[in-house]
Amino acid sequence: MQAEQKTPAAWDELLERLGEVADLRGAGALAHWDQATLLPSGAAQGRGHMLGTLSKLAHEKFIDERLATLLGECADFAEENLAEGDDFPQQLLATTRREYDRATRVPSEFEARFAAHSALIYSVWEEARSESNFQKVAPLLEKTLDLSRELAGFFPHDHIADPLIDMSDTGETVQSIRAVFAPLREQLVPLVREVASRPVASSAPLHGDFSMDAQKDFAVEAVKAIGYDWTRGRMDFSAHPFMTKFAPDDVRITVRGDEEFGELFFSALHEAGHALYEQNIARRFGRTPLDSGTSSGVHESQSRLWENLVGRSNSFWNYWFPRAQAQFPSLRDFTQSEFVAAINVVKRSLTRTESDELTYNLHVLIRFDLELEMLEGKLAIQDLPAAWNARYESDLGLTPPDDARGCLQDVHWFSGTIGGAFQGYTLGNILAAQLFESAQDALGDLDSQFARGQYSPLREWLTQNVHRYGAGLLPRELVVQATGRSLELTPYLNYLRHKFAA
Amino acid sequence: MQAEQKTPAAWDELLERLGEVADLRGAGALAHWDQATLLPSGAAQGRGHMLGTLSKLAHEKFIDERLATLLGECADFAEENLAEGDDFPQQLLATTRREYDRATRVPSEFEARFAAHSALIYSVWEEARSESNFQKVAPLLEKTLDLSRELAGFFPHDHIADPLIDMSDTGETVQSIRAVFAPLREQLVPLVREVASRPVASSAPLHGDFSMDAQKDFAVEAVKAIGYDWTRGRMDFSAHPFMTKFAPDDVRITVRGDEEFGELFFSALHEAGHALYEQNIARRFGRTPLDSGTSSGVHESQSRLWENLVGRSNSFWNYWFPRAQAQFPSLRDFTQSEFVAAINVVKRSLTRTESDELTYNLHVLIRFDLELEMLEGKLAIQDLPAAWNARYESDLGLTPPDDARGCLQDVHWFSGTIGGAFQGYTLGNILAAQLFESAQDALGDLDSQFARGQYSPLREWLTQNVHRYGAGLLPRELVVQATGRSLELTPYLNYLRHKFAA
Repeated sequence: MQAEQKTPAAWDELLERLGEVADLRGAGALAHWDQATLLPSGAAQGRGHMLGTLSKLAHEKFIDERLATLLGECADFAEENLAEGDDFPQQLLATTRREYDRATRVPSEFEARFAAHSALIYSVWEEARSESNFQKVAPLLEKTLDLSRELAGFFPHDHIADPLIDMSDTGETVQSIRAVFAPLREQLVPLVREVASRPVASSAPLHGDFSMDAQKDFAVEAVKAIGYDWTRGRMDFSAHPFMTKFAPDDVRITVRGDEEFGELFFSALHEAGHALYEQNIARRFGRTPLDSGTSSGVHESQSRLWENLVGRSNSFWNYWFPRAQAQFPSLRDFTQSEFVAAINVVKRSLTRTESDELTYNLHVLIRFDLELEMLEGKLAIQDLPAAWNARYESDLGLTPPDDARGCLQDVHWFSGTIGGAFQGYTLGNILAAQLFESAQDALGDLDSQFARGQYSPLREWLTQNVHRYGAGLLPRELVVQATGRSLELTPYLNYLRHKFAA
Repeated sequence: MQAEQKTPAAWDELLERLGEVADLRGAGALAHWDQATLLPSGAAQGRGHMLGTLSKLAHEKFIDERLATLLGECADFAEENLAEGDDFPQQLLATTRREYDRATRVPSEFEARFAAHSALIYSVWEEARSESNFQKVAPLLEKTLDLSRELAGFFPHDHIADPLIDMSDTGETVQSIRAVFAPLREQLVPLVREVASRPVASSAPLHGDFSMDAQKDFAVEAVKAIGYDWTRGRMDFSAHPFMTKFAPDDVRITVRGDEEFGELFFSALHEAGHALYEQNIARRFGRTPLDSGTSSGVHESQSRLWENLVGRSNSFWNYWFPRAQAQFPSLRDFTQSEFVAAINVVKRSLTRTESDELTYNLHVLIRFDLELEMLEGKLAIQDLPAAWNARYESDLGLTPPDDARGCLQDVHWFSGTIGGAFQGYTLGNILAAQLFESAQDALGDLDSQFARGQYSPLREWLTQNVHRYGAGLLPRELVVQATGRSLELTPYLNYLRHKFAA
């Protein structure tokens, strides 16, 4: 009889410390969520203090040297468990070491400087954008560029943008992303041109009597149907939709919308896609750094898959269109195909967040290329508006009438680093198609399942191949394990051509 | 020209540390509030971890020895400021020292034991109460009694209950409270008997078409009228109404109700009374231990004053009854005096939380006396149900048919200590009348102000004499400063006799 294996004290202490960090981060996420959904108008100052303290204490607790000691002391325990077939301790050590290394390479002094600068530029950007006055924020944006380079400089790198990319898409580099994005752009620009040259379907089905309450009820049903666990979540309204996690059993989504059908419903599906990922991570990963999606790109693959590949498909609406007609009488004047055409209209536009599924990536590629040029020192901040506009002309055939609708439109450069924040959107779109193809290979005719309102085979396949691993597998490991291949463009281009050029 | 006085580094560090403790407590309060109002049904476990970590870290941060050092180093600075007429540093040091002393006398080992026991007995009590099975929880209640004695034993005391009372009503003792409660009981029992012997007014006006939404709208208006600042607060529903504070600019209230008029409206006024106190503490006290009401009794004086002395007065309804009739058509069948009689019905009952303004204190006095007897070892836990029932018979003329409606009804003994939790309710009722009398002396005819919907003179008098001091004055100092006298029974008895025996 084998003696019962005793868990070493170092392992218990490690879990306890990581658990407290997770609790503090969860409390910070709750404070953010409350701020975005319910906070009284006059309560910003106190909430700022609360968020600052929670973030500071979580950081201090995580970079404690004791944690490094514990990681070392647990190495043998992890090896033993791995030998016995349990890779949880090994994965936890690897992921925690990587996060710890990231957190300790950056001096607290820099963090403070960067946080102060971010708060400042954000408020100036809000004014600059409302006045469409790029010059107002340009000097601060130059400082953001300097700080972004300084931050990257704390890490070894080939390209100055690599460390910034690695922070949200671990393992990706400028080189690996360019290898996918360059051919994507080559194919996408002519495809968009071709599709956009055809007559545009009418959006009339989306303009009817769509009260927010009724739309919310309808979205709740759909989100429930795809498998979001309402006993461990909620849906509320906020100015910008998001998904957030306070604990494994509390993963919330927010939506926004108006009296036109579409934004509320698809933001709900999108955020529910993120939430399915977080809700279905292995429960034993709770209160550790493994209890999170593994990268920005993989996360976005989940949201886009449910929003677009499922939610904008004709087969999905075989089931839901009659229900929508029952709920929204104005839809009875339209056929399903008119409705599906309306939610899939392709129209070149100036604004990323309002763009359709096909043109969306062009917006991302423009931003990704320009931020690399800025980081490389090839594009001066002063020349950003002109470079932005030139790319919109060449890739989308449109010229922004002002910088508010041009290079001032996105918050990313004006609240964080230049570099690292955009690539995940398009990586996610590409990966969504590759995962969907593999799921289809494994599960047979998904369309006929969707037409019957059945989503559990797909969702369970995703849980089995993506969700449950949390941050335990690197993005590239995950993609190979789930699809048998590295990330590739073909499934996505096939999907786009089939859907939009057919 | 006087040299600019430099703030010593110790003072800055003290404020920073106290600020972080306040932020952590605020985050804990937010996590509690969210749990009581919005938490998904399956999210209790994760929330438990979050609450536990926030409370542990706030405690650890507060009892840090560095805080004691800083308190010492700031003594001269506080003296100098006091000499120049600013008593803020002095008050902050005194209040923080008192809290620090309390927090450090109790060993962490005891805190953990007590927390674990409280969680256990609470869940067993829920079952025991639903089954009306006192024996089920009796052994655990014996342990609560032992732990309550042990906790009191960490502090010097005359009576074993004194330290427990002092925790929520600083400066009060068994002796000081008995000096007020004994004569109160002597007067109250016959007064209740007298009032209860008369015909009871009809409660028909309260049974009409009172939708929760319409009641909430009406309560929002009234709470706004008495001065609750909606830009720094919200009102939501919860199973038990409460007021909570996350920061000086975020003080929220919750209410509950049903389709009968009364509970929702008066719980809103009650909690808004608590909230007015917290919203109007001097802003410079923010993020320090001074940013809180000074005691349970003084807090309750504020809630009861607005709920009862204002909200159940005839003059209040001179203004609001026509508005209520406009909002709730069924009220048009009744006169104002019928309505005011209905919201002031005196009826002896078995349940504290459902009792009227007059009999309420009898419920409190019973609990206060019984918990002293238990702590003194004069009443065994096994004999509690019989002793409870005997007191209900002698004081209220009613016999509980079972322990669920008897000694199992309140959560207090089954989630915290035996001792210290009840006296504040009645101290608050007594003080409310004394403060109201003083306000009336200063402000003239309050009734005619209420009849015109004017509450700002009263509210401003309370802010000036009570709210703004936060925890900076001890309860007894506050009472003397505000009313010129120590706490006394006469105003309260006069008020009750005038209202109910007239």
